[in-house]
Amino acid sequence: MTELGFAMLGYGFMGRAHSLALRALAGLEERPAALPRLVSICGREPVALECARAQYGWAEAVTDWRDQVADPRVDVFDNAGPNALHLEPSLAALRHGKHVLCEKPLGRTADEAHRLWVAADRAAVVHMCGFNLRFMPAVRLARELLESGQLGEPTHFRGRFLASSALRPDQRRTWRFQRSAAGSGAVADLGSHLVDLARYLIGEIAAVRAATRTFVGERDAAPVDVDDAFASVVELEGGGIGTLEASRAAGRRSGACSFEVDATRGSLSFDAERLNELEVVTRRKETRRIEVTDPGHPFLELWWPAPGHAIGWGDSFTHELRHLLAAVAGATTVRPLGADFEDGYRCAEVCDAILRAAETGAREVVVYRAARETAAAAGAGP
Amino acid sequence: MTELGFAMLGYGFMGRAHSLALRALAGLEERPAALPRLVSICGREPVALECARAQYGWAEAVTDWRDQVADPRVDVFDNAGPNALHLEPSLAALRHGKHVLCEKPLGRTADEAHRLWVAADRAAVVHMCGFNLRFMPAVRLARELLESGQLGEPTHFRGRFLASSALRPDQRRTWRFQRSAAGSGAVADLGSHLVDLARYLIGEIAAVRAATRTFVGERDAAPVDVDDAFASVVELEGGGIGTLEASRAAGRRSGACSFEVDATRGSLSFDAERLNELEVVTRRKETRRIEVTDPGHPFLELWWPAPGHAIGWGDSFTHELRHLLAAVAGATTVRPLGADFEDGYRCAEVCDAILRAAETGAREVVVYRAARETAAAAGAGP
Amino acid sequence: MTELGFAMLGYGFMGRAHSLALRALAGLEERPAALPRLVSICGREPVALECARAQYGWAEAVTDWRDQVADPRVDVFDNAGPNALHLEPSLAALRHGKHVLCEKPLGRTADEAHRLWVAADRAAVVHMCGFNLRFMPAVRLARELLESGQLGEPTHFRGRFLASSALRPDQRRTWRFQRSAAGSGAVADLGSHLVDLARYLIGEIAAVRAATRTFVGERDAAPVDVDDAFASVVELEGGGIGTLEASRAAGRRSGACSFEVDATRGSLSFDAERLNELEVVTRRKETRRIEVTDPGHPFLELWWPAPGHAIGWGDSFTHELRHLLAAVAGATTVRPLGADFEDGYRCAEVCDAILRAAETGAREVVVYRAARETAAAAGAGP
Amino acid sequence: MTELGFAMLGYGFMGRAHSLALRALAGLEERPAALPRLVSICGREPVALECARAQYGWAEAVTDWRDQVADPRVDVFDNAGPNALHLEPSLAALRHGKHVLCEKPLGRTADEAHRLWVAADRAAVVHMCGFNLRFMPAVRLARELLESGQLGEPTHFRGRFLASSALRPDQRRTWRFQRSAAGSGAVADLGSHLVDLARYLIGEIAAVRAATRTFVGERDAAPVDVDDAFASVVELEGGGIGTLEASRAAGRRSGACSFEVDATRGSLSFDAERLNELEVVTRRKETRRIEVTDPGHPFLELWWPAPGHAIGWGDSFTHELRHLLAAVAGATTVRPLGADFEDGYRCAEVCDAILRAAETGAREVVVYRAARETAAAAGAGP
Repeated sequence: MTELGFAMLGYGFMGRAHSLALRALAGLEERPAALPRLVSICGREPVALECARAQYGWAEAVTDWRDQVADPRVDVFDNAGPNALHLEPSLAALRHGKHVLCEKPLGRTADEAHRLWVAADRAAVVHMCGFNLRFMPAVRLARELLESGQLGEPTHFRGRFLASSALRPDQRRTWRFQRSAAGSGAVADLGSHLVDLARYLIGEIAAVRAATRTFVGERDAAPVDVDDAFASVVELEGGGIGTLEASRAAGRRSGACSFEVDATRGSLSFDAERLNELEVVTRRKETRRIEVTDPGHPFLELWWPAPGHAIGWGDSFTHELRHLLAAVAGATTVRPLGADFEDGYRCAEVCDAILRAAETGAREVVVYRAARETAAAAGAGP
Repeated sequence: MTELGFAMLGYGFMGRAHSLALRALAGLEERPAALPRLVSICGREPVALECARAQYGWAEAVTDWRDQVADPRVDVFDNAGPNALHLEPSLAALRHGKHVLCEKPLGRTADEAHRLWVAADRAAVVHMCGFNLRFMPAVRLARELLESGQLGEPTHFRGRFLASSALRPDQRRTWRFQRSAAGSGAVADLGSHLVDLARYLIGEIAAVRAATRTFVGERDAAPVDVDDAFASVVELEGGGIGTLEASRAAGRRSGACSFEVDATRGSLSFDAERLNELEVVTRRKETRRIEVTDPGHPFLELWWPAPGHAIGWGDSFTHELRHLLAAVAGATTVRPLGADFEDGYRCAEVCDAILRAAETGAREVVVYRAARETAAAAGAGP
Repeated sequence: MTELGFAMLGYGFMGRAHSLALRALAGLEERPAALPRLVSICGREPVALECARAQYGWAEAVTDWRDQVADPRVDVFDNAGPNALHLEPSLAALRHGKHVLCEKPLGRTADEAHRLWVAADRAAVVHMCGFNLRFMPAVRLARELLESGQLGEPTHFRGRFLASSALRPDQRRTWRFQRSAAGSGAVADLGSHLVDLARYLIGEIAAVRAATRTFVGERDAAPVDVDDAFASVVELEGGGIGTLEASRAAGRRSGACSFEVDATRGSLSFDAERLNELEVVTRRKETRRIEVTDPGHPFLELWWPAPGHAIGWGDSFTHELRHLLAAVAGATTVRPLGADFEDGYRCAEVCDAILRAAETGAREVVVYRAARETAAAAGAGP
Repeated sequence: MTELGFAMLGYGFMGRAHSLALRALAGLEERPAALPRLVSICGREPVALECARAQYGWAEAVTDWRDQVADPRVDVFDNAGPNALHLEPSLAALRHGKHVLCEKPLGRTADEAHRLWVAADRAAVVHMCGFNLRFMPAVRLARELLESGQLGEPTHFRGRFLASSALRPDQRRTWRFQRSAAGSGAVADLGSHLVDLARYLIGEIAAVRAATRTFVGERDAAPVDVDDAFASVVELEGGGIGTLEASRAAGRRSGACSFEVDATRGSLSFDAERLNELEVVTRRKETRRIEVTDPGHPFLELWWPAPGHAIGWGDSFTHELRHLLAAVAGATTVRPLGADFEDGYRCAEVCDAILRAAETGAREVVVYRAARETAAAAGAGP
């Protein structure tokens, strides 16, 4: 069994999610492909950092990620930092030949994301973008059902991610409300999940139309230069159409991510508020609510010997990091079930197109670049 | 108590719905504002027509609607015919000074709808467009909640209407698949309901972006020249954004009409598959599922003395026709709770803008005309 | 087509439900087996009675049911009066050779119910007990699924009927709170529905154990001598066990009637709060939610040509009265799909056994008598 | 921060659940009251045992629990073995002054459970019985709501636990189908959870009536001498009544544990298949579905900084073991929020009364003994 050295940047929400997942891995399986060794965690506030280090069990705390990316004990650089720290540290890690997991969105812009993909592609390491929803059992089951062909050809995709954080009167102008730090608002933070789900489940997005809104234009006496919400129409390469919509101004909602796929012989629905369930319609007027908690369901073989025992949101990170470890150990590949930097980049192109379309009012075709610029045409889908 | 003579055009699905509703009215209330007298029903096939006449209790069957619109016994002309028969018979009825109820969509185009509105406005009669969803108790309750202000300012509207009729392999090229007869496909048939709901609940639509698809391009060896599905982004006059989407190519769905409104202090959801329920979110992580079956809920005072007894889809027509009768009797006005021809027209402008936007790829501003062309600016909303 | 003269006793809740149903019948079908002629309605308060007569369209109002049962124009006596008026008027109608529909519970006691059954059996007329839940599409579908054998052998039945009427502080000591008038409380009013559903769906009840409670012992300064709630264990003749429970003291509930059947190869659930749905489990971790609104579903052929249009609670009475009319016209028989007086009697025996068991604390075997007392053994099931 | 030595008996389903929970604790909190040190795990099969030891991170594997209970490094004996191994090892651990966590049911009979309680009471150690459902956020919230009085006085409790394991044709006669090993069948395995929930939420059970069934009487050519299912009526000390029902013969169900409480001013419902939700009714026709995933909800402060992130079934054990550790460290007491051996014993008395009532057919009063036999009367409730 391989042991892989991890270095993590960040100890906030995502840092916690990754840390708990890394800790959970060892107990789950009799013969894991690989297990993590928690080498170092990086952050800026020394006291909080040391506290996180101790609590999550990282061997060392460092305040400069440059020490991590050069550390020979480190095999995998886990970038759980804010959006503005995705580019430079990840590039540096790639230059040092580290495998890299980077949280979503991969870059603040498609350009940043493309630079990361190009670098990762050249480095010939394992690279992964943190689209954890792919690792929910019900989402994986949705993909399996769609791939099996039993639902027919997809005609529609509907994705929604609704939150209300921008409506709280005391909400400060954190980095998530600044373009320079976040890239965009609801588009980057919530919409990127929807774009990745659409791509994961039914294929590439060819063109978009969109509108955005910033409902609170000023916070802390400074302007908010990102969107609070967007609504978009997407055209899929396969011929279908759909809508993607996300908001931080949807009253009293908190993190309601849901999607629906309609296809020629059936439909399916997922709502992260009931993450252990998938609803499938293959007969008129019959909705099958599948509790994805049977030992035969995706990922469930990792958990309990009897059916009916729900997993939690945090466990999706456990599945994600297990997938990464297996890929580094050579037991699987990140694609197509995980998202790599190409996926992160392609998602970013769609996000940029949504923002562009909102400005122009026009239909914007999404143009995908290749990793190797000599390759003229855009690469294939996921 | 007033008795009003009714003449109905059509004995198909809508003709049945209206007829059963008209029959149900007398038993419901102790003191109705007015009750209908079923004077004549009009159709083309004599045998089926006579059968419908006898079954639904119409006094006479006629094969030419011109006989109805000129009939002095007739107070209200109820146009439940197919889209291509909305214009001419309704115009004729208006010219004869009849009150007119016309099924949705009011016209095949905004121009047709505008002609009807102008004529109705000049005739100074009661006119109503058959948006029956307004008369579901849960939809009315949604409006009351939004009007009360307790949910705050609307930021988003999401409307969906999903069917699969275009996917049935044996589906013929009926009039619904022909532009000359239907105006458009999913836009006119399903989308018009969504547009009306958006307008009814949160106000006028200012601009749209949209895509359409025709998945089956040929039926009965002839081309299908209407859309099977559309997806659109709408901008609301009040500043919100949202999506409207309808399809006849959503696998195994049948008539799933649903909408969601997000506002600054809460959200609400309605799904016609559970038409007696409204879901409201006014506290984080709490969804109130209101069974709209209490004697104090809208329309429920008409039904049962005890709470908890669901009504059916057909009963929305009963409420609609009761509203019409009360308006003709002078006990209420069609607007704002019912839709009149202005509403039918405004809805048609949005539908036309959706079709236009799908062609141009661009954001299309919706321009509303006035009834009296001398009035330069478009009139106010509902 | 046959026309049958109806006389109805009562114009309260059930009188309204039956009247509206009788009025609705004519419009529904092209070729009904029979249609009602509303001859007379009977009640005590002349003003309210006349008002009901006019509203519901009964030809005459009478204040003595003796005039109805002897009226040669009357074919069917529809007893929608309170429990204390079930016995004598129905017996008189039977003696006059009238067909009789009697609301549930058939009698205040099993003895009363038995007298009615014996009389009906001797009169050789059509007799029916008003268990309207049998006529909900989802309940009928449940029976069809169970009869088909695809769920295997029933092992459990769970029935619940929860209301809160006894908890309202202003609730008066109406006849429903008096043994002499009502027979019992929650047992007769709510429990009888559950007993009938159990019998209808999975067979006879062989023995019961039970407890009852009266939470408010005095109303209007007089004692309440009936139960507010009961809970019981039932043993089914087929070998299964289950629970029946009803209450008028279940906080803020109003009319929540639900049941579940577990069988060896599957399970099903029904909740009258979502009366158009049936949930069926035939695969582990998969619940099929059937919207029983497809034209192919039970009773739906009567309604709309397209799927997805829910019916209401009141429509179950329309189905019930249509069944009665068809039985009188010889086009069907009341049993096994409707409940006749034998069913009403057998239900009453179970209700009596529940009350007895609550007193004795012991398991009470349910002993069923035959209609013809010479027949020693109890008759077979439904 | 205290570190407490743990020894665990068993490495099956419960052994896994406890082990993963113990491993998860360290990462969760900045300042835990105490953390576990995994001293030894005990089992019979050396290869599987060593495998479990390594996977779950126990320092040693032993094949005789006697080595554990005498081990001075051990502070807490965690008995996750089968029912037949609850008594002797736990008694031995108590005799050695160890704190003891014992899985449910505490004993195969009330006598066994009483012996354990008496011993624990005399040992003056911390003792806990593994009713993990108490540690689900929604269940804790249910208790808080009931304790707050806002729902009024409880009138009814309904508990269900449905499984289908006894219906699988290949189901062997494991120890769960043998009275000598298991005590009883569905009563001990599933019903004990329901009894504990009833006691936890609304108080002591005073009397029961019950029926049991064994649907498959023989397995592996040997008789099954335990129940596959039971149904019972319970009388609560507070005056309410209710039903408890569990089955291993409920077709295709798997682990559906649910309960409902009705009280004078409201009702609530919980279903473990949606363990992150609690439904509360405090207004007529309004059901509040609370997603118990807000940082302010019970236990949620342990998890994520943002609302809306579901936990899993296994996390209830994490909460349970955290509670135990805190109790041993003196930071809290096992009761009233956790279940101790008195709770385990009282639950066993009810289970015994259910089995007795099923045999006698009669109402059986539940008689509770005291821990100190000199105390004549039964002790007070939880």
